[in-house]
Amino acid sequence: MSNLDAVYSKLTIKTGAKLALVVLDGLGDIATASQGFLTPLEAAKTPNLDALVRSGCSQGRMTPVAPGITPGSGPGHLALFGYDPIEFEVGRGVIETLGLGIELKAGDVAARANFCTLDAAGLVTDRRAGRIATEVCERLCTLLASKIKKIGTTQVIIVPGKEHRFVVVFRGAGLEGPLTDTDPNREGLPIANASPVDPKSAGQKKVAKLVADFYKAALPLLKNEKPANGFLMRGIAHQPDIPTFEQRYQLKPAALAVYPMYKGLAQLVGMIKIEGPTSIAEQFERYVREYENYDFFFIHFKYTDKAGEDGNFDAKVKAIEEFDAALPILLARKPDVLAITGDHSTPCAAKGHSWHPQPVLLHSALSGSDKLDRFTETGANQGSLGVFEAKYLIRLMQANARMFDKFGA
Amino acid sequence: MSNLDAVYSKLTIKTGAKLALVVLDGLGDIATASQGFLTPLEAAKTPNLDALVRSGCSQGRMTPVAPGITPGSGPGHLALFGYDPIEFEVGRGVIETLGLGIELKAGDVAARANFCTLDAAGLVTDRRAGRIATEVCERLCTLLASKIKKIGTTQVIIVPGKEHRFVVVFRGAGLEGPLTDTDPNREGLPIANASPVDPKSAGQKKVAKLVADFYKAALPLLKNEKPANGFLMRGIAHQPDIPTFEQRYQLKPAALAVYPMYKGLAQLVGMIKIEGPTSIAEQFERYVREYENYDFFFIHFKYTDKAGEDGNFDAKVKAIEEFDAALPILLARKPDVLAITGDHSTPCAAKGHSWHPQPVLLHSALSGSDKLDRFTETGANQGSLGVFEAKYLIRLMQANARMFDKFGA
Repeated sequence: MSNLDAVYSKLTIKTGAKLALVVLDGLGDIATASQGFLTPLEAAKTPNLDALVRSGCSQGRMTPVAPGITPGSGPGHLALFGYDPIEFEVGRGVIETLGLGIELKAGDVAARANFCTLDAAGLVTDRRAGRIATEVCERLCTLLASKIKKIGTTQVIIVPGKEHRFVVVFRGAGLEGPLTDTDPNREGLPIANASPVDPKSAGQKKVAKLVADFYKAALPLLKNEKPANGFLMRGIAHQPDIPTFEQRYQLKPAALAVYPMYKGLAQLVGMIKIEGPTSIAEQFERYVREYENYDFFFIHFKYTDKAGEDGNFDAKVKAIEEFDAALPILLARKPDVLAITGDHSTPCAAKGHSWHPQPVLLHSALSGSDKLDRFTETGANQGSLGVFEAKYLIRLMQANARMFDKFGA
Repeated sequence: MSNLDAVYSKLTIKTGAKLALVVLDGLGDIATASQGFLTPLEAAKTPNLDALVRSGCSQGRMTPVAPGITPGSGPGHLALFGYDPIEFEVGRGVIETLGLGIELKAGDVAARANFCTLDAAGLVTDRRAGRIATEVCERLCTLLASKIKKIGTTQVIIVPGKEHRFVVVFRGAGLEGPLTDTDPNREGLPIANASPVDPKSAGQKKVAKLVADFYKAALPLLKNEKPANGFLMRGIAHQPDIPTFEQRYQLKPAALAVYPMYKGLAQLVGMIKIEGPTSIAEQFERYVREYENYDFFFIHFKYTDKAGEDGNFDAKVKAIEEFDAALPILLARKPDVLAITGDHSTPCAAKGHSWHPQPVLLHSALSGSDKLDRFTETGANQGSLGVFEAKYLIRLMQANARMFDKFGA
C-alpha cells in the first residue's frame, strides 16, 4: 500500500452514504472532420443528462493509466475501482477467464490458450490452427476436459472461447504465476516450455511442471486432429491478491453488469454481483430496488465501447441516447454521489480502445457547478476537476460523500 | 529530500527578485443553486483584482494535498510554502501550540490536552469535563504551571486554550514524538499510557516517561477540583525537522499574519514574523515599508475562511471586497512575482474546509495572460496553469522570478 493509500485509509469514515459509478464503456471519443468535429457525446440528444449537468456537476477528464497508455478492460476498471493499474496488474489469463464467466478462486492459475497446427517434427506451422470454427473448439475442449480432470491433486478446468481460443485454469494448493508463454510467437519453432518468471518461486515451479504434464496428457489426445493438433498457452498468471473494495473504502459494493468480463473484474475486488438485468433500464431499476442493501453501485454499460470498436459513430450516439433515456430511473432514487464516465476512450476513428482521457462527471450536494450546459469531452476540458488519474475518482467520490476526516489540524 | 527537490535546488539562482504570496484563507468555493450558481469570488465586486487580471495573469487551480483530501491549516500552508504535506507531517499538538501563539524550539514536544472528569476509581466519566469555562481552564493551568516547572531537567510549559483545552510543551534534550494518546476515546475507561509509536526510539521512550511523571505530579493537584479533576493528552508530537524556507529557496522570507496559527506555521519553516498590522490594509502598508528587507512575503488574510466556516456567503463576499479595496496599497510597490490564492477551499455550503482545488493567480513580467476578465473558480478552470499540486506554487513563483537555470543543455 502506498503512503497516500495509507493516508486515505486513516482518514476514512463510514457514513452510510450511497455512491453510484455508472461506466459507459469506452465512452470517450475524439472530434474529427468526418463527423463535423462532433463527438458521439456531442452529437447525441441527451436531455436528461443535460438537465443533470445544469443542476450542478463538476467535470473533468481522466487519464486511465498514464499519458499515452491505452488500457484493456482490466486496467481500465481497476483504475476506476481505485487500484493503481500499474501496481495491481492482472494477468491476461485471468482477464480472459473472467471474460468467459468463469469464477476464479484465490490461488487459481489461469492461462489463455489457443489451438495451433504442428507438423510431424512438432514445429508450429499455424499459430491459430486456421482459426477453426467455435464449434470445433468446443468439441476439442470437451474432449480434453473429459480426459484430463486432474493432474496429481490439482484440478484442471478447460473452457472454450471463440474460434481457436480457450482457457485453462489450474486449481490447487501452492500454485503461483506468472510463467513465460509456451507460444514461440512465430511459426517454424516448437512449443516452448512455460518457465517461472521468478526462478526462486516454488509455486511457479510447480505450475511449470503442471503445464508440462498437461501437455504430456493433452497432445496425444489431439494427435489425429486436423488442423488443431496442438495448442499454445499465454499469459499464465494467478488471481492476484487484491485488498477488497470493502476493506479499502469502507463501502459495501455491488456490481450491476451484463457482460461476464465486467462481472469478473468486479468480483476480483470483492464486489457482489447482482444477476438478472440485461438492459441499462433494467440495471437502473434493480439499483433502485437494491438501494438499501449496498453503499456502492458499479453499473456497467457495454454498448458505447462496442460501437466504438466497430467504428460505428451512429451506433455510439444511439447507445448514449439509450443510456440517457434510462437515466431518470436512476435519478428517481438519486445516490448521494453519482459519477458518470468511461473506463477509457474508444474513438470511432480508432476502432479500438485509446489513451485519450475519458470525460467524467460528478454530481453531489458538494460537487458545485462548472456552469456547463452539457457533458461532453470539450466541456469537460473546462471542468474544475481538470485532467487527473482515473484511480483518484473513487477518492473524489468518497470526498463528495464526506467520507474523509480533515488531514492535519 | 526528493529527487525533484534536489533538481530545483541545483537550478536555483539568487536574483534579488521580490516575491509576494497573498493567502486568502479558505478562498475557494463552489457554485450552488441557492446562490444563483455564483461563488463568493464571482459575486464580489473586485475592480482592483479585475484590473490586475486584465493587465496579464496566469490562472489555475491547486489540489492542496491529493485528490479528495481536505487539509487542515497546517498541511494547507506547508504545501503553499512548497513542502510536501504528506512527507512533512506536523503533529496536532504542534499545530495547536502554534495556534496559541507559543513559539516552539527545535526538539520541543507538544501535546494538546483537555481537562476531563474522573470517578473515584480513576475512570473517565466526561472526556471534556462538561466543557468548563475558559476562566476555569486558565485558573487550573496557572495552578499546574506554578507547581510543575520542570520534570528532571526537562522544562514543562502549560498554556490554556478555550474552554477545557490546553497545551503542554516539554522542552529539553533528546525528546522525540509521536506518542499514542492518553485519551481512551470513550468514557468508562481509565486514562491510557502514552506509548512510543516507534518502540525503538529512545527519545519517544523518554517522552513516555515524562508524560507518566507529569500525570503523577499533576493529578494530585487537581484531586479536589470538580468537574475537572483529570486531563487527557492527544497528538503528542515533536517540532518536525524541516529545512528552512531560506535554505530551500534562496529567499529571505517574512510573514505578515495576524492570527497566531499562521505566524506559527511561518515560523516553523523559518520565516521572520513581522508583528504589528491587524488589517489587510495595514499588512500591505507594512509590506511596502519592508520591501527592501526581505525577498519573499507571506501575507495571510483570515476572514474569507472564517466566513466560509460560518456558511456566511455575504460575509465571504465582503471579506473578498475588503481585500480588493486594500490591494492597490500592495500594487503601488508591485513585487516581481505576485501570487494570490487560498490554502484550501472553505465552501459556504460545506461550512468547513474542503478538498476542492483552490483558484490561484500569478502575475509577473512573464506570467503571460490567460485572457480572462476576472479571478474566479470557473475562470481559473480555463487558466494556463491547469490543476496542479499546491506544493509546486512556490516553484512557479521562482520560475516567474527567473530564479531557475535551464535544466540540461
